[in-house]
Amino acid sequence: MEIIQSNNYPIYFDNSIVELVNFIKQSGYSRFFIFTDENTGKYCLPVVKEKIDQFDNYDIIEINAGEESKNIDFCIGVWKMLIDFGADRNSLIINLGGGVISDMGGFVASTYKRGIDFVHIPTTLLSQVDASVGGKTGIDIEGIKNIVGTFAQPKAVFMINEFLKTLPPRQILSGLAELLKHGLIADAQLWADLKQNDLTQPSPELIHRSVKIKNKIVLEDPTEKNIRKALNFGHTIGHAVETYSLLNDQVPLSHGEAIAIGMICEAWLSNKNADLPDADLQDITATLTTLYPKYQLHENNFDALFKIMQMDKKNLNGKINCTFLTRIGQFSIDNICTEEELYNSLRYYAAL
Amino acid sequence: MEIIQSNNYPIYFDNSIVELVNFIKQSGYSRFFIFTDENTGKYCLPVVKEKIDQFDNYDIIEINAGEESKNIDFCIGVWKMLIDFGADRNSLIINLGGGVISDMGGFVASTYKRGIDFVHIPTTLLSQVDASVGGKTGIDIEGIKNIVGTFAQPKAVFMINEFLKTLPPRQILSGLAELLKHGLIADAQLWADLKQNDLTQPSPELIHRSVKIKNKIVLEDPTEKNIRKALNFGHTIGHAVETYSLLNDQVPLSHGEAIAIGMICEAWLSNKNADLPDADLQDITATLTTLYPKYQLHENNFDALFKIMQMDKKNLNGKINCTFLTRIGQFSIDNICTEEELYNSLRYYAAL
Repeated sequence: MEIIQSNNYPIYFDNSIVELVNFIKQSGYSRFFIFTDENTGKYCLPVVKEKIDQFDNYDIIEINAGEESKNIDFCIGVWKMLIDFGADRNSLIINLGGGVISDMGGFVASTYKRGIDFVHIPTTLLSQVDASVGGKTGIDIEGIKNIVGTFAQPKAVFMINEFLKTLPPRQILSGLAELLKHGLIADAQLWADLKQNDLTQPSPELIHRSVKIKNKIVLEDPTEKNIRKALNFGHTIGHAVETYSLLNDQVPLSHGEAIAIGMICEAWLSNKNADLPDADLQDITATLTTLYPKYQLHENNFDALFKIMQMDKKNLNGKINCTFLTRIGQFSIDNICTEEELYNSLRYYAAL
Repeated sequence: MEIIQSNNYPIYFDNSIVELVNFIKQSGYSRFFIFTDENTGKYCLPVVKEKIDQFDNYDIIEINAGEESKNIDFCIGVWKMLIDFGADRNSLIINLGGGVISDMGGFVASTYKRGIDFVHIPTTLLSQVDASVGGKTGIDIEGIKNIVGTFAQPKAVFMINEFLKTLPPRQILSGLAELLKHGLIADAQLWADLKQNDLTQPSPELIHRSVKIKNKIVLEDPTEKNIRKALNFGHTIGHAVETYSLLNDQVPLSHGEAIAIGMICEAWLSNKNADLPDADLQDITATLTTLYPKYQLHENNFDALFKIMQMDKKNLNGKINCTFLTRIGQFSIDNICTEEELYNSLRYYAAL
C-alpha cells in the first residue's frame, strides 16, 4: 500500500520492520531507546528486537500498561532514565505501544533537552488510526486527559499489521470507533463499507483509508484552528464519559466505547440542531448500539459529566463546543451547546 | 528607543506598562494569570497591578523565589492551579520575574492544553538581556539545568527599566555577564563601551544594544543548529560551575558569576586552540576578575565539574562542545575539547 506522507514524515504500511531498520541505519543517531509497556514488551518487542539486535546502541524503557501510567510521575521517571543513560540531543525514542506510549513517549521526547527525535510503532488499532497522525502528545493530570502536552511530529510511523492480531476484541472495538468516526465526518462510502465488513479484525486497506482521511484533515489545519475540529465529533461528550468512567468504574470504558456513546449523543444533537436527517441518526444509533455494549448512564450522573465537559480543552470562554454532522460524511464545527441540550442528548442515550 | 522585533513578537523598551495594558485590551483573552515570585510579588507586582486593576479577569500565581523552584513539582502545582482556575486555551500567562519565572512560566504555558499564550516582563538584568529573546523555556531535573523544556515564543516582552533599580548589586552583576558576552562574541565596540561605563546600573541604551545582538543571532538560527551556538560562549564550563556550586555551596554562585568563570576558561581555550590574541585573553581575564569575585576552584573538584560537562545538552556523541573566540567580537562554534584541555583551562582560572 502507498506510503502516506504526513506533516514531513512518512507512514509505512508495508515491510515496516525493514523500513525501521533502514531508518535507524541511515539516520546516525547516537543512541536509541525503545519505550514500551508490559503488554507490548511481551507481545511486540520480541518481533522488533529480532531485527534490531544488529545494533548495540539501544536501551529499553518499560512502564506499566494502562491510562493510569500516562501521568507526570512516569514522565519524570523516563526523563531521569534518559539522563542516567546519557541520552544526548542526537538520541531517538521509538514508541512501541498504544496511545499511552505514543502520547507520553512523544511528550517526553519533545521536551527532553527541548526536543529529541521520536518515531511511533503503534500496536493497537486505536493508535494506528488515531495517534499515528496529528502530532499531538500529552499526559493526564488529576484524571484530566491530555491536559498537558505539546504539538510535535514524529520522524516516521511504522504500521505492523500482525500486532493487531494479538489484541483482545475489546481493544479492536476501541480503535474501531475512530475508523467509524472518520467515515461519519468525511466519507460516507467508508462508513458504508465498514458496516459490510468483518469488524472484529478490520483489514489493512480499511485502516489505510481511515488514516488517509485523518491525515488530510490534519495537514490542512495542524494546530486545530478550524477544520481539524471535525475530528472532535463524539469527543466532547465521549471524553467526559471516558473520564467519568475512569474515575468511577472498576473496569473503566475503553476510549472507543466512550466515543461511541459520545457519537450517539452528538448525532442526536446534530439531528436537533444541524439538520442531520432522521434516517442518518437512526443508522448511526443502530450501528453503534449493535457494535458496542450499553453503558448505564443515570440522570444523577449527568451533573458530574457536565462538570467534566466544562473542563474540556476545546471550550472557549466557558462555552461547550461540539462538532456536529449535517449528514453522514459531512460535518459542521464550533457549535455551542447549552447545558439543557447536552443533558437531553444523554437522556436519548440512556433511554435506548 | 526602537521596538525590537523578535521571532513574531515585539520587545518594548519605552512606556512598557502602557503597552502591556493596550496588549491586554486588544487581545481579548478570556482570562490572564500573573506568574510571579515572592520578590517580584513584593517589588514589581504593585507597579503592574496599579495599571491592570481596571481588568477583573485575572489571578496571581506566586511561587518561592530562587533556582530551587525551577522544578517539575512547581510546574505540576501551577498546572493544577490553572485547572482549578478554569484556564482555557484562550488564557494568557504574564511572567513577571527573572529567569526562573520566565523559563518555568514559558514551559508551563507552552504545554498547558498543548500551549497557551504568554508574555514576559523580565525584572532582572539577566532576564532582560537573556531570557527575553530566544524562545527557550525550561526546568531543572536532579539539578541539571533546563534538561526539560520547549522552544516557544512569547507574544510580547515588556522591559521596565525601573525594576532594575530595586535589584541588589549581585543581581546586576549576574546579568552583566551576558551583556559582556554579547560584546565578546559579536561587537567589540559594545565590549569597549561597557568597560568605560558605570556597570553597577547599565543604561537602557546598553541593554537595548545587547538585546539587539542576541536577537539578530537567534533570528538567524532559532533552533540552535549553527550560529546560535555563539551564545554558548562561556557556558560549557560556566554551566558546569553553576550546577556544581548549586549542589555544593551554601550560597551558590549566581548565573553570571559562573558564566564569568566560564568565559575566562573558554577564552584561555580560545587562546590555545583558536588563535585568540594574547592581548585579548589578558583584557578579558583582567576585566572579568576585576568585576567578579574570585571563586575557589580546587584540583579535586575538577572531576565533578567534568562529569557535569559530560551531561551538557550541547554535547553530541559524548564529546564536549565549546564556542571559542577568534578575537574580541568574533566567534567560532563546534569546537571539541578534550578532558585535558578542559582541566588545564580550569587550572588557568584557579591560578589567577
